Amino acid sequence: MKYNIGSHDDENWIITEDTFDTRYLGKCEAIMVLGNGYMGIRSATEEAYVGEVRNTFVAGTFNQFDANEVTELPNAADVIQMKIILNGVSLDLTKGSISNYKRQLNVRTGELIRTVNWELPAGECYELTFRRFVSLSDRHLIGQRIEIIPINQQASIKLISGINGQMTNSSVQHFSEGDKRLYDNEFIQLVQTTMQSNIHFVTNTVHHFELDDMEVKPNQLIQMDRRKIELNYDIQVNKGQKLVIEKVSNIYTSRDKEHQSMELKEIKSLSYQALKDQRLRGYEALLLESSEAWKTKVWDLSAVTIESSNPFDQLAIRFAHYHLTIMTPSHDNRMNIAAKGLSGEGYKGHTFWDTEIFILPFWIYSQPKTARSLLEYRYHSLPGAHKKAKENGYEGAMFPWESAWLDDGEVTPVWGAADIVTGQPTKIWSGFIEQHITADISFAVWQYYQITHDEDFMERYGYELFMDTAKFWSSRLEWDEAAQRYHINDVVGPDEYTEHVNNNAFTNHMAYWTIKNAMCYYQQLKETNEELWDRLNQKLDLEVAYEKWSDRVEIIYRPMPREEDLVIPQDDSYLNNKEIDLKKYKTQKQVGLIFKDYNMEQVSEMQVSKQADVMILIYLLENLFTKETKIANWNYYEPRTLHDSSLSLAIHSVLASDLKMEDLAYDLFQRASRIDLGPNMKSSDHGIHAASIGGIWKCIVNGFGGVRMLDGKLRIEPHLPETWTKLSFPIYWHGERLIITITKEVMIIENQTGNKKIEFIYKGKAFVLETFLRLDLNNE
Amino acid sequence: MKYNIGSHDDENWIITEDTFDTRYLGKCEAIMVLGNGYMGIRSATEEAYVGEVRNTFVAGTFNQFDANEVTELPNAADVIQMKIILNGVSLDLTKGSISNYKRQLNVRTGELIRTVNWELPAGECYELTFRRFVSLSDRHLIGQRIEIIPINQQASIKLISGINGQMTNSSVQHFSEGDKRLYDNEFIQLVQTTMQSNIHFVTNTVHHFELDDMEVKPNQLIQMDRRKIELNYDIQVNKGQKLVIEKVSNIYTSRDKEHQSMELKEIKSLSYQALKDQRLRGYEALLLESSEAWKTKVWDLSAVTIESSNPFDQLAIRFAHYHLTIMTPSHDNRMNIAAKGLSGEGYKGHTFWDTEIFILPFWIYSQPKTARSLLEYRYHSLPGAHKKAKENGYEGAMFPWESAWLDDGEVTPVWGAADIVTGQPTKIWSGFIEQHITADISFAVWQYYQITHDEDFMERYGYELFMDTAKFWSSRLEWDEAAQRYHINDVVGPDEYTEHVNNNAFTNHMAYWTIKNAMCYYQQLKETNEELWDRLNQKLDLEVAYEKWSDRVEIIYRPMPREEDLVIPQDDSYLNNKEIDLKKYKTQKQVGLIFKDYNMEQVSEMQVSKQADVMILIYLLENLFTKETKIANWNYYEPRTLHDSSLSLAIHSVLASDLKMEDLAYDLFQRASRIDLGPNMKSSDHGIHAASIGGIWKCIVNGFGGVRMLDGKLRIEPHLPETWTKLSFPIYWHGERLIITITKEVMIIENQTGNKKIEFIYKGKAFVLETFLRLDLNNE
Repeated sequence: MKYNIGSHDDENWIITEDTFDTRYLGKCEAIMVLGNGYMGIRSATEEAYVGEVRNTFVAGTFNQFDANEVTELPNAADVIQMKIILNGVSLDLTKGSISNYKRQLNVRTGELIRTVNWELPAGECYELTFRRFVSLSDRHLIGQRIEIIPINQQASIKLISGINGQMTNSSVQHFSEGDKRLYDNEFIQLVQTTMQSNIHFVTNTVHHFELDDMEVKPNQLIQMDRRKIELNYDIQVNKGQKLVIEKVSNIYTSRDKEHQSMELKEIKSLSYQALKDQRLRGYEALLLESSEAWKTKVWDLSAVTIESSNPFDQLAIRFAHYHLTIMTPSHDNRMNIAAKGLSGEGYKGHTFWDTEIFILPFWIYSQPKTARSLLEYRYHSLPGAHKKAKENGYEGAMFPWESAWLDDGEVTPVWGAADIVTGQPTKIWSGFIEQHITADISFAVWQYYQITHDEDFMERYGYELFMDTAKFWSSRLEWDEAAQRYHINDVVGPDEYTEHVNNNAFTNHMAYWTIKNAMCYYQQLKETNEELWDRLNQKLDLEVAYEKWSDRVEIIYRPMPREEDLVIPQDDSYLNNKEIDLKKYKTQKQVGLIFKDYNMEQVSEMQVSKQADVMILIYLLENLFTKETKIANWNYYEPRTLHDSSLSLAIHSVLASDLKMEDLAYDLFQRASRIDLGPNMKSSDHGIHAASIGGIWKCIVNGFGGVRMLDGKLRIEPHLPETWTKLSFPIYWHGERLIITITKEVMIIENQTGNKKIEFIYKGKAFVLETFLRLDLNNE
Repeated sequence: MKYNIGSHDDENWIITEDTFDTRYLGKCEAIMVLGNGYMGIRSATEEAYVGEVRNTFVAGTFNQFDANEVTELPNAADVIQMKIILNGVSLDLTKGSISNYKRQLNVRTGELIRTVNWELPAGECYELTFRRFVSLSDRHLIGQRIEIIPINQQASIKLISGINGQMTNSSVQHFSEGDKRLYDNEFIQLVQTTMQSNIHFVTNTVHHFELDDMEVKPNQLIQMDRRKIELNYDIQVNKGQKLVIEKVSNIYTSRDKEHQSMELKEIKSLSYQALKDQRLRGYEALLLESSEAWKTKVWDLSAVTIESSNPFDQLAIRFAHYHLTIMTPSHDNRMNIAAKGLSGEGYKGHTFWDTEIFILPFWIYSQPKTARSLLEYRYHSLPGAHKKAKENGYEGAMFPWESAWLDDGEVTPVWGAADIVTGQPTKIWSGFIEQHITADISFAVWQYYQITHDEDFMERYGYELFMDTAKFWSSRLEWDEAAQRYHINDVVGPDEYTEHVNNNAFTNHMAYWTIKNAMCYYQQLKETNEELWDRLNQKLDLEVAYEKWSDRVEIIYRPMPREEDLVIPQDDSYLNNKEIDLKKYKTQKQVGLIFKDYNMEQVSEMQVSKQADVMILIYLLENLFTKETKIANWNYYEPRTLHDSSLSLAIHSVLASDLKMEDLAYDLFQRASRIDLGPNMKSSDHGIHAASIGGIWKCIVNGFGGVRMLDGKLRIEPHLPETWTKLSFPIYWHGERLIITITKEVMIIENQTGNKKIEFIYKGKAFVLETFLRLDLNNE
């Protein structure tokens, strides 16, 4: 059996699966997930197979099952599954034989289309087409359309379809069962309510049938089961006739900003009314509205265009852009992006540093309003961060490693996979001691501010975040009497294969940066915005804090390049750890192979890294280090890095671009792009890799495009890969919309808004863009 | 595709499925369920299929998910499923082709055996044997054994097997996740705790491998997922070699009487120690112990033997006996029998009148100790019955229609299937107004007492039950001023198709009987057992109650045969209801067809009955009515009865025997036996029909055997069906063990215990049995 995921048509808009194999259901369920930031629906097939995972998530609707479990995004009622029985045989593509099989996600329109001819051993044959979308123009709406043509016989077709609330998160049931109801003999409604967070979900669905383009009303029978309401339809279709089944559904919840103050009965009524209207418009019209939204809100606005001899590259960035769009709840600043988007149960819908470091740059440059909303989420989650700080004996805002509800604080699970040595679950230490997230957020706020100059955001939220995170870090420092400096002991750095380390270079540098940055803006506010300074001072006791910062900041130990080889020690112990032959793991086909041979404790004592650690420090604070230091550290750490985190490859690709290792950068970009889109058929089972998908954009715009904000200045220093002839993308800089087009010879920058002049740096030289600028790259 | 469920070998001990069809998975899952009264495990296959239902129930471990749901028997962690991958292909009998397929439940030994040759399209072929049992000698123990022989190629075999706690009741999760652990690198343990009732379940499992009868240790890797712990094994098997996989598991809970006062860690430790020992003994030895228990505790003790030209009859009673054994928690008087035994989620593990009226007679006559335990459950559930009475404004004990925990009171769900007219769920009225259960229990106590003469039971529990139920009924009566008598209005009788009726004949007669019976024993105790009378009087205020009974009992309205046609009105309205042509429904292939045309309200207004109502009155209180009355009512009601309840056919069969309609009785017995064992492949999906299975025994012993307790006397009046030449069965009467053997010519009764003389009635004549009696049936 051969798979061809990531293939593409001439235009490179389409992800195609051309073989059906039930061993790999998870792959396309996840990478072809449909959504719109409000909801995500995994692309399980209409018919059921063993091993499938059906998920319908609505962003931000977290629920905690019990005290032993962390809050997670609950798997809501499903409308996608339909049981189709053709002359008494349930549709099941593993039976009989199939031909002309194709499942395609068109990322331009957001439509998923599956076509197949199914032939039964007895000779009956059906031509089947399944289409589906989650609307980008109406975030509550889901459309489905099925066409069935019996090719060489008539068919008695039975359809069992409705709303199935028998969904769980790997068997964990988050919902209390509510009303189920049939209205007007055709509209089905099911209510469910999360058990602990008390969010009502109202799901509605309706069916519409056509035979050879004429509406028909099949015989129907209502059927209710536990948490389930379905209609059974019976319809006779002649040989060669086309049966069309349209199913239009919607989901509303009491978590929706516009519905949160309503009574449940109002939500029930308005969602039912909405569906009545949608039913009249029909699948094609509703799809058109949605694909128009894809055009205007996504592709016209911020598409990245690549001319490459390898057409996969264009597809990869469109795939990334599609997923970045559907994973981000840009409609609601009380929510953030989950590590698997809305495409799977992995990481329980929680938000990590993935947002700030790997995904946010895309939004800052492409759609700053959404970036702001994501940062507002962090501001609004300060109650949780304060709670966590207090629980741990610290001051200020200690952001949770994993974040869900605004006031939750830490929600990282405590126990993980099996320890092969002890036979017990392994303790997950990230929630306790992976603390750099608090610096990452502060850094992201600064990055947002520098790129957008959004002073309104800063006054409302940004400065306070600077100060509150600095307060945490200054309280977190530990005085080392012998060394006469401040240490940060017992942490997990970005490299999660070394737990309980002291003075992780990344953590210490970023903590220092956070405090220094806060001190800088403290002074600036005091001088320029006394009112705000006063308010913040009163709220956060800034004067006292500032004194502490001043006392401590310069005696924070920041690991520096060793004299002998310029290698920055990843932490106090790493360079003394034992080295083993990593060849087996460097060439592994699936991540995490090392844990089949060693347990976490053992791995912690080796010179082996899961992902970029020192390298990400060099990437974020690039002006701190010389080129020689960067190369020395690349040469030391990359061979010891297994890239077992999907966060690793993209950062390495950008750094390789910076270091002018273009071929390597391109190779790493390809590998990063193939984490989800590539041939590993199991890697996406628990959901797509949101950070890695953000990384695809970073490889291209930050890496090959060379766009970077450095010390508040725009730098553009492109390094197109060999295979590329042209790269074009828009960015927003200080509110101006720039279109940057890069070829091997020239870079053209156009300011489409043209309100102010933009300065930028190219190869160390400053340029000023008025409205149009053409730079001959070979001459500069 | 052809099914042959209910086929048999020469000895009629074996239920065989000889075709595999995934449309009908539920059938054999339920009818081939394994168990021992402590636990029941549905016979889902090792490999998974869409539509399967895996259930592992431990009797009496009820849990309530939330306030919207009633308490139910939770679906515990599964050990049965194993993923078997043969040269990279997951075992899946719907792929490739199969031959020599057979799945057999041997009810003599309690072993389930499946054999199949599986050939893949590429030509690879495997001979597979799966064996399994739940031990009757050690109630915690489950044994599995798989044999795999690669026929014409070598095989790389992967097994993924362990304990899966990702089980739910149709998506409702009753358990909190507990520890999971691998001990000694081979013993797996998983703990789960019911959320609301706080019962700990400890499940342990261990694997053992042999290649050509030599133990081997395959490569293994531990793997933990949410609520799941598994070992992955890899093993190479040569062409023609036999791989044996044994998996031995056990389940212990803190609900177990002997473990309820232990700490969880003690239960963990003792269960693990038990498995260590069991592992050493191995599958065959453990199976032998269990099948020995089947021999001595079941078949040697109380087998019914039939010589019939139709060998199905012998199989049917063995099938019934097997199920009656495994469905009954005879080890624990805090538990009772569920309407679906332990074979499915239907009726949520609740106990109905099914126990007293349909199943208890089997236990009273065959194993009185178990019958006593089941009645003790009712006694111990008096707190719940008092609660229900109080909630409804009545006195005494008002037993719940559906019963679970002893102190629950009513647990009938409030909402059921869809109403085809309104599109809303239908309200289930049984829990509110199907009140005859309280009389049924009193009647069953009396029956137990009369048959066993167990005075100890009566003094501890029985008399009090008589009095307390009578107190309820006297408080339940409603004075009708016009008629100057007591009515019982707004009830559901046994015929659940007529809701909210007044003066249901069965209910009123049984209420009268309950009060009269209590009055009789009140007097008797007062005269003969003053101490007990005193105690009960103090507890229940009997003197006051007795006065009320005396005042009321004879003016309770009891519907009597009409003068014109001897028909007893089923209730005040039935005979005036509209009549419709029922032909379509009388010949239906699946029960409940009428609800595809009418809703409950409409059905309630027709002369149509779900099941025996007046007929069951005639059956229970048979001495009240003349033969003419019986025949008149049969002729009136049977044609109006759809037998849509599995409780209907057996009662009709017994009555047909009584009325000397032998052919009809035999036909009804066959139909009753085929409710589960017959060709309807969907009827057992939610579990076997416990009452109907009790009914199979009733058809034979009460019906064809003619054994009945009438007014305290044993009556034996056999009517062998045409096809039978001999019927033999044991009964206990007043503590004596009698073996009754009936042929067309003679009846031989042997008293095996021989402690006292036994009187019995045959055709109205009294006989006395000393130790042996031979009755020439044609001459008497």
